[in-house]
Amino acid sequence: MSPSEPTIRFGIMGCADIARKVSRAINLAPNARIAAVASRSLEKAAAFARANNLPPDTKIHGSYESLLDDPDIDVVYLPLPTTLHLKWATLAAQKKKHVLLEKPVAVTVAELDQILAACVANGVQFMDGTMWVHHPRTAKMREFLDDKHRFGELRTIHSCFTFAAPDSFLKDNIRVKPDLDSLGALGDAGWYGVRAILWAAGYHLPKTAVATRALVLSEQGVILACGASLHWEDGKSATFHCSFLTHMTMFLTAIGTQGTLQLNDFIIPFEEHEASFSTASQARFNDQVTGWEPGPSQHVVSTDIPQEACLIRELSRLVGEIKVHGGKPDLTWASRSRKTQRVLDAVKESIDNGFQPVEIGN
Amino acid sequence: MSPSEPTIRFGIMGCADIARKVSRAINLAPNARIAAVASRSLEKAAAFARANNLPPDTKIHGSYESLLDDPDIDVVYLPLPTTLHLKWATLAAQKKKHVLLEKPVAVTVAELDQILAACVANGVQFMDGTMWVHHPRTAKMREFLDDKHRFGELRTIHSCFTFAAPDSFLKDNIRVKPDLDSLGALGDAGWYGVRAILWAAGYHLPKTAVATRALVLSEQGVILACGASLHWEDGKSATFHCSFLTHMTMFLTAIGTQGTLQLNDFIIPFEEHEASFSTASQARFNDQVTGWEPGPSQHVVSTDIPQEACLIRELSRLVGEIKVHGGKPDLTWASRSRKTQRVLDAVKESIDNGFQPVEIGN
Repeated sequence: MSPSEPTIRFGIMGCADIARKVSRAINLAPNARIAAVASRSLEKAAAFARANNLPPDTKIHGSYESLLDDPDIDVVYLPLPTTLHLKWATLAAQKKKHVLLEKPVAVTVAELDQILAACVANGVQFMDGTMWVHHPRTAKMREFLDDKHRFGELRTIHSCFTFAAPDSFLKDNIRVKPDLDSLGALGDAGWYGVRAILWAAGYHLPKTAVATRALVLSEQGVILACGASLHWEDGKSATFHCSFLTHMTMFLTAIGTQGTLQLNDFIIPFEEHEASFSTASQARFNDQVTGWEPGPSQHVVSTDIPQEACLIRELSRLVGEIKVHGGKPDLTWASRSRKTQRVLDAVKESIDNGFQPVEIGN
Repeated sequence: MSPSEPTIRFGIMGCADIARKVSRAINLAPNARIAAVASRSLEKAAAFARANNLPPDTKIHGSYESLLDDPDIDVVYLPLPTTLHLKWATLAAQKKKHVLLEKPVAVTVAELDQILAACVANGVQFMDGTMWVHHPRTAKMREFLDDKHRFGELRTIHSCFTFAAPDSFLKDNIRVKPDLDSLGALGDAGWYGVRAILWAAGYHLPKTAVATRALVLSEQGVILACGASLHWEDGKSATFHCSFLTHMTMFLTAIGTQGTLQLNDFIIPFEEHEASFSTASQARFNDQVTGWEPGPSQHVVSTDIPQEACLIRELSRLVGEIKVHGGKPDLTWASRSRKTQRVLDAVKESIDNGFQPVEIGN
């Protein structure tokens, strides 16, 4: 951190479980600090600050409005239920707070567009809470995918994220409540699969989405498991599957004309400080077709701070540019969020229309 | 090999590339030997015998008919183009030869049923050439899937096999000729994905198949890449993808309620004598959601002889039972072949009818 780089002050809006992890990340990022925490009750916010060892000078707010009016906050982190994003993220932007929004960023692209418009209008930075894209491993994997010799041209992507939610989650968690998170597993676990596919595809949107019949709905109609295939104009294709109902599994396989990338922990690495991925390039069977030549290679990437702290560091760097140099917000992250949400919308539409193909507009 | 167990005599019908590998396997299996090789020309058969160091006393036949009339042959191995299977496998059975038939075993289930009927009528053993199911690794993986504590109940399977065929293959190989192998990549690479899915599902047939739109056809209409999702009555689902057009990639992921099985070399292990697979059981994120607890385990399985020799050993054991004890053929392998072919038929039908769901009968 250069001497001219400011320390960005974060306010946490809501005490969801994930806020614990992000609080720690803010503490670990060299250019950020926790300045305040808010809940709908002072007691809940104070308890969160104590339980998570927030700095003693952390301000405690008993309402979200109070946090947004706090002049000593640069960025607001919103780990709220998805249906509340439109109201609070928009209001945060209007109060000139930079916005770190949990995924799924909205219930629909139409809602997200209102949030993003508010961010642009108020000159604030927007970023969603997808952490793995900030891990240095992801940059190394990008190098592989961009290598025409080792990987060639991307043709196919397969992705999967499932976890076995406990009964209590399936009954009470906000992610299965139609009024709080109507996208269910698609918005939660599916977000990662879609994002990984778009990441691999250089954030080029597919043309068509078709949901598979591997759909499970709760009694209230919330998605507990689903999947889809995605198809690009140039013949590229992808599949993803997501579920709250099966054992923890995550994989990402990107197949090119010359190489393959594979990993089984892309969202949250098995271990915090070191993560790996596998590549194979120009692999063939040996002459007797009894083994591979060459076999795959394993690549290990260390990180000085956890991926979620990398996210905070990057966001704080962008906010610092605006704060110190009066720059404009970087719209790259907003665009990536929007494309992810756009594909989720199309998959949801395909589910709702009986697994028919849905064209993905802009 | 017990003293009472006979050495089973194999005749090789045709000199396809894959016959080189199977010749070596017959040599390596303790209860089998190569007795004869046939081609449509004596010269070609003799050249094959020399090039592959077949035993000096190997009989050389200048026609398939001559091989089938050879009284010193127990089993005929048929690495012929798929469209020729019906004629030659049926004739082999009628000549009382046990049948080892390359995959895909037929163009349609209807054709396979004629072959299998001939085998039953003539009391000969049938087995297809799928090798990986005979690797001791597969038995260890089966133990994991059958373990209610470590794996729970199977819910989802994802499988993929692609390889980048050279231009010469895409122009001239029998697997892209409509009159020789009309199923193309579906019958070749797709066979393995479907078989792996059925294997994981305990060979219970799915109820429905739906081809994905990730379909590539050659100018002659042969499948170069395709995929499908499969759906069972009980809510289980699976996907597979296969291609001749992208880098060598194979994976099998089976997800249960309590555990996950993953491997990236299920068809042909990276190395011949040692193969591995990964399992995870009751994995969760740690308290801070920054890592896995527990992480996955790697399991290494050695094999005394290569998987293709394990296949020959098992087939020879079954044939020996019939030969020495006058037993009846074991129909397990025929049933597994038939189920695989049944699913291929349904996927092909779904492709032909514009990706509509196809019910899979018996």
